[in-house]
Amino acid sequence: MSALPHFIRNIPRPSQSVLEALRAFGTATVHEALGRIGAMHSSIKPIARGMRICGPAFTVQATPGDNLMVLKAVHEAQKGDVVAVDFARITDSGPFGELIAIECQTKGLGGFLTTGAVRDSKEIIEMGFPVFASALCICGTVKETIGWINHPTSIGGIVVNPGDIILGDDDGVMVVPLARAEEAVEKSAAREAKENGVKEKLRAGGSIFDIYGYQKVLDRNNWTEE
Amino acid sequence: MSALPHFIRNIPRPSQSVLEALRAFGTATVHEALGRIGAMHSSIKPIARGMRICGPAFTVQATPGDNLMVLKAVHEAQKGDVVAVDFARITDSGPFGELIAIECQTKGLGGFLTTGAVRDSKEIIEMGFPVFASALCICGTVKETIGWINHPTSIGGIVVNPGDIILGDDDGVMVVPLARAEEAVEKSAAREAKENGVKEKLRAGGSIFDIYGYQKVLDRNNWTEE
Amino acid sequence: MSALPHFIRNIPRPSQSVLEALRAFGTATVHEALGRIGAMHSSIKPIARGMRICGPAFTVQATPGDNLMVLKAVHEAQKGDVVAVDFARITDSGPFGELIAIECQTKGLGGFLTTGAVRDSKEIIEMGFPVFASALCICGTVKETIGWINHPTSIGGIVVNPGDIILGDDDGVMVVPLARAEEAVEKSAAREAKENGVKEKLRAGGSIFDIYGYQKVLDRNNWTEE
Amino acid sequence: MSALPHFIRNIPRPSQSVLEALRAFGTATVHEALGRIGAMHSSIKPIARGMRICGPAFTVQATPGDNLMVLKAVHEAQKGDVVAVDFARITDSGPFGELIAIECQTKGLGGFLTTGAVRDSKEIIEMGFPVFASALCICGTVKETIGWINHPTSIGGIVVNPGDIILGDDDGVMVVPLARAEEAVEKSAAREAKENGVKEKLRAGGSIFDIYGYQKVLDRNNWTEE
Amino acid sequence: MSALPHFIRNIPRPSQSVLEALRAFGTATVHEALGRIGAMHSSIKPIARGMRICGPAFTVQATPGDNLMVLKAVHEAQKGDVVAVDFARITDSGPFGELIAIECQTKGLGGFLTTGAVRDSKEIIEMGFPVFASALCICGTVKETIGWINHPTSIGGIVVNPGDIILGDDDGVMVVPLARAEEAVEKSAAREAKENGVKEKLRAGGSIFDIYGYQKVLDRNNWTEE
Amino acid sequence: MSALPHFIRNIPRPSQSVLEALRAFGTATVHEALGRIGAMHSSIKPIARGMRICGPAFTVQATPGDNLMVLKAVHEAQKGDVVAVDFARITDSGPFGELIAIECQTKGLGGFLTTGAVRDSKEIIEMGFPVFASALCICGTVKETIGWINHPTSIGGIVVNPGDIILGDDDGVMVVPLARAEEAVEKSAAREAKENGVKEKLRAGGSIFDIYGYQKVLDRNNWTEE
Repeated sequence: MSALPHFIRNIPRPSQSVLEALRAFGTATVHEALGRIGAMHSSIKPIARGMRICGPAFTVQATPGDNLMVLKAVHEAQKGDVVAVDFARITDSGPFGELIAIECQTKGLGGFLTTGAVRDSKEIIEMGFPVFASALCICGTVKETIGWINHPTSIGGIVVNPGDIILGDDDGVMVVPLARAEEAVEKSAAREAKENGVKEKLRAGGSIFDIYGYQKVLDRNNWTEE
Repeated sequence: MSALPHFIRNIPRPSQSVLEALRAFGTATVHEALGRIGAMHSSIKPIARGMRICGPAFTVQATPGDNLMVLKAVHEAQKGDVVAVDFARITDSGPFGELIAIECQTKGLGGFLTTGAVRDSKEIIEMGFPVFASALCICGTVKETIGWINHPTSIGGIVVNPGDIILGDDDGVMVVPLARAEEAVEKSAAREAKENGVKEKLRAGGSIFDIYGYQKVLDRNNWTEE
Repeated sequence: MSALPHFIRNIPRPSQSVLEALRAFGTATVHEALGRIGAMHSSIKPIARGMRICGPAFTVQATPGDNLMVLKAVHEAQKGDVVAVDFARITDSGPFGELIAIECQTKGLGGFLTTGAVRDSKEIIEMGFPVFASALCICGTVKETIGWINHPTSIGGIVVNPGDIILGDDDGVMVVPLARAEEAVEKSAAREAKENGVKEKLRAGGSIFDIYGYQKVLDRNNWTEE
Repeated sequence: MSALPHFIRNIPRPSQSVLEALRAFGTATVHEALGRIGAMHSSIKPIARGMRICGPAFTVQATPGDNLMVLKAVHEAQKGDVVAVDFARITDSGPFGELIAIECQTKGLGGFLTTGAVRDSKEIIEMGFPVFASALCICGTVKETIGWINHPTSIGGIVVNPGDIILGDDDGVMVVPLARAEEAVEKSAAREAKENGVKEKLRAGGSIFDIYGYQKVLDRNNWTEE
Repeated sequence: MSALPHFIRNIPRPSQSVLEALRAFGTATVHEALGRIGAMHSSIKPIARGMRICGPAFTVQATPGDNLMVLKAVHEAQKGDVVAVDFARITDSGPFGELIAIECQTKGLGGFLTTGAVRDSKEIIEMGFPVFASALCICGTVKETIGWINHPTSIGGIVVNPGDIILGDDDGVMVVPLARAEEAVEKSAAREAKENGVKEKLRAGGSIFDIYGYQKVLDRNNWTEE
Repeated sequence: MSALPHFIRNIPRPSQSVLEALRAFGTATVHEALGRIGAMHSSIKPIARGMRICGPAFTVQATPGDNLMVLKAVHEAQKGDVVAVDFARITDSGPFGELIAIECQTKGLGGFLTTGAVRDSKEIIEMGFPVFASALCICGTVKETIGWINHPTSIGGIVVNPGDIILGDDDGVMVVPLARAEEAVEKSAAREAKENGVKEKLRAGGSIFDIYGYQKVLDRNNWTEE
């Protein structure tokens, strides 16, 4: 046990082509396509409408009120990575602000995700760096406590492995297991194609209730109307 | 009891002229005009600033995590209706998304209201269909459980009867009992007229405290100043 | 004790030059510059992105559901003052709306802050008067109960003295004690200058982790990597 | 629609023998036995450890802050009935107290269930009448607003029909649909018998993991150990 | 303003006879008897069932996470006083523990009330000193920040003046304004006498619905039954 | 990375003598003695008053709604271990119940800790096995998803390493880092000895305010009295 390193430098990452393909889909689509898995707790949202993230997770276990591990992780993450930090959904400090956001953006990181809070929201939104968090909070943090980087980490109720793909949009965040990334692309595309067909029918006046034949579920349950 | 149908097809509805008249007022105005009644729990808000709803309630009692009743209700509701669904303020699934929104918009429904969550928020906001909800959530639902449509239904702390008018804006949602719709229009107009007079005085430098003579309430309570 | 007046008319206020200087800084900067003090509970936020307040506190202790003290305070406050009201973080009524906002704006008040809720949010946002609150709520209030104006008042977890400076932006609200206002300007400017230097380094590819030498904290804690 | 009565006097009820049989099981057992259905929101709990309820639901839709419908329902309910009231999980008033509890107990009602709050908790606990609620609250209520009694009612996220069986213990409350009451008894007994066998094995040193063979689930997922 | 002292030593107090008389009533009774006033937020409860407080408020405005003012107040309070502290309903530290409880009990204080959290709950409960709080929390506090003692203070949504009577039982806490203490005793006694009459009728099989004649409210609202 | 095993069998553990020594102290004492560290989120409490835990952490990262990892961990943990599971503070399922509790007790485990919910609370309390959780919930779980056992795991806001000591009582849970266990015993004993001296003084009529000389902090802050 004592041999477990605090920081695991080498992590697997998805291919660029898979990331580009996944980026085109909404979180709800991929969540459904993979069999309704991977949705983080709904308290985690973009700090401004329209932000999107899609990149491999660079996972961090940190202590609420201390952002030393955030700084180390941002320092070590690679272009495109999404630094994803578990702060136990405790939101009374802002361990991510404008300075770190500048470093992230300069390095070309894919985004920042925390179950806690962030600050300097105006500046971060203006620079256009995508950040997903549970709250905004003015309060500062210390830099004293070590944690663990790139270990499997439970974030927002989902166990995230480093390299798993973090996908976020206005609806929230979901996690695509790395091993299922290509499957996710295929099934999402298939689902979207199918949904496009349904959309056409709906725009022509059709009804989901009829298209999928849900009357039979009602009948099975002795549905009555007046 | 066993004779109570799951779905009551024929419901009363307000006249178009009453709806058009009510639509011009803010929720707070109508709430005050009717004697401070009808305001739903403040957790229910438009999913984007500026959305408004004003239409007869097509009420739904559904089970959290199951949107079969939503699909049936949307299928059966008429132009202008607001499908209003009680999901018990449980927000860990999104039983309303882009597909249903397209069906609603194509049919010309007046809006969708839920005490639960919705998903595909970006797409719904772009298409301009008004949706009021407690949260956004990625998670999907099943379609297995029957409930009750157009029965009196407690939604956000207000017992809504089918045909009652759902009025929503950025401040939240209030319910106008159908039998009091015309009274609501008249009293709201009167209140607004009166408030317009007050606004003029305020813009000219007046004070609400003076206009309404609240010093006498202070005096009655032995107010002291230094 | 019985000699304590309900309303203390004369309160100290900061100079215009200090207010102008402080207004240029973000809340997080000033909070850090003064040694991480003064941040109110993170539930208190502007009712629309981009609103800012910076002015002396005109403090109010009021009873939830009753806005008589709000009306009295707005009536008595001076140009630039921020009327700051403790409503115990209870948000099921809206004791501040369009009418009071018009009076505030006409008088040139600096803003309105409440731990409770407000209503008529659309109209208030359109008129551009800065309001910070915990929620939006349709429900009305009575005008019956006296409270205390310009006594030291605990608002959002911070004991605010009348004349202390309320500083608010998208991240939330912080309080600068009046006696430390000039110190706040100096230290914030110093902090910002220092941060500007860091920003340049970051934009040139530097890392906060290196710039501040946090490796030594890791080493002190027997950090291991793989 | 206008023909729907506010109060439906005649409701179906389960037999005494089914009720007695169900009463012997814990809520978790019956919930599992019926395929994981019927559990109300976990905020609803007995007001004192050890309270149990098992009886047919006498359902009430009421307005928060108004207990007129509670008084009518208690007046009309029969021996053994559980008066079950939806107050929308709004807990800032106590619409049930000592007086009503005395009436309930004198009439031999089976219990009282609310998604809201109660008061006079000490007196109610001492008299031993079983009450399940979300909170305790001092505040009083008015008696002005009518609602609906013995309509299908969504209570704590479960659509309850009058006559459905309310089963509550220290873990919370679940609802057994009347039509499945006998099935619930049989399947719960079977589950308990099976669990008793497992308990014996566990007390002899066995492990659930081995007994149910979960190693195969791990193997299927490429489990690794060190 | 600068003349306002941090600590006001002399406060009015109710007579012992009034306190003894009030102590006999439940919080809900006095709340109703005075016209439904004075109930604190329902999150504030005794840390163990059966604790009761009844004494004059010794009010404290303190900063969350700092208990210097608590220590000063306990030091200065007199036999029978209830030290009542506003911590803004922020509960992530425990500014009251065993040591302070011993000092309180030795001095014969009437109780301790906080909108925040306490610790050493086991020891405090065993010694039988009555404490009302919003939570239990292990975390410690500093002793660095001054606040205000015996100023009017908003506690749990109620503006408490020093000397007002804090009355607490299992249902929560209510505040009796000092000037209305005798009125509270009289009206509570009258209410209790009236309720005793009702209780007898209920135990004899009567119904609140009939006793108070609520059928007429139903009739006024076009109540229908089936 | 791919080499990281799901389950790490061999973990360090504290000596029995250290555990026995620590068990004698309250959580608040040890938290203070180590410099105010290690307190978990205050939502995690014993499921019945009086329960205590003190043992090495056997850490589990699991997915909410799935207890496969709980079963595996209980299967593998040793006498005295405290199985400590992160369920992201999501409490709408009960992944620990009577059967698992029997297995735990038969094996002599030291306790069970979860950020989620448990069920069968009555039976578990009667058997006297110590369980700390955030809630009680009837709902069942599946057994399908693998996670990680005995990796460093963030539980209730504290990063717990396997073998760290979990200490819990009525106030909540704190974590003693294994490397600081002996220091914790010594410093807690010293603190307790010192506090015993203070307690004697307090029982003799002394005051904490005087004993620690806090008047000087007040003087430093220009304290005024009237």
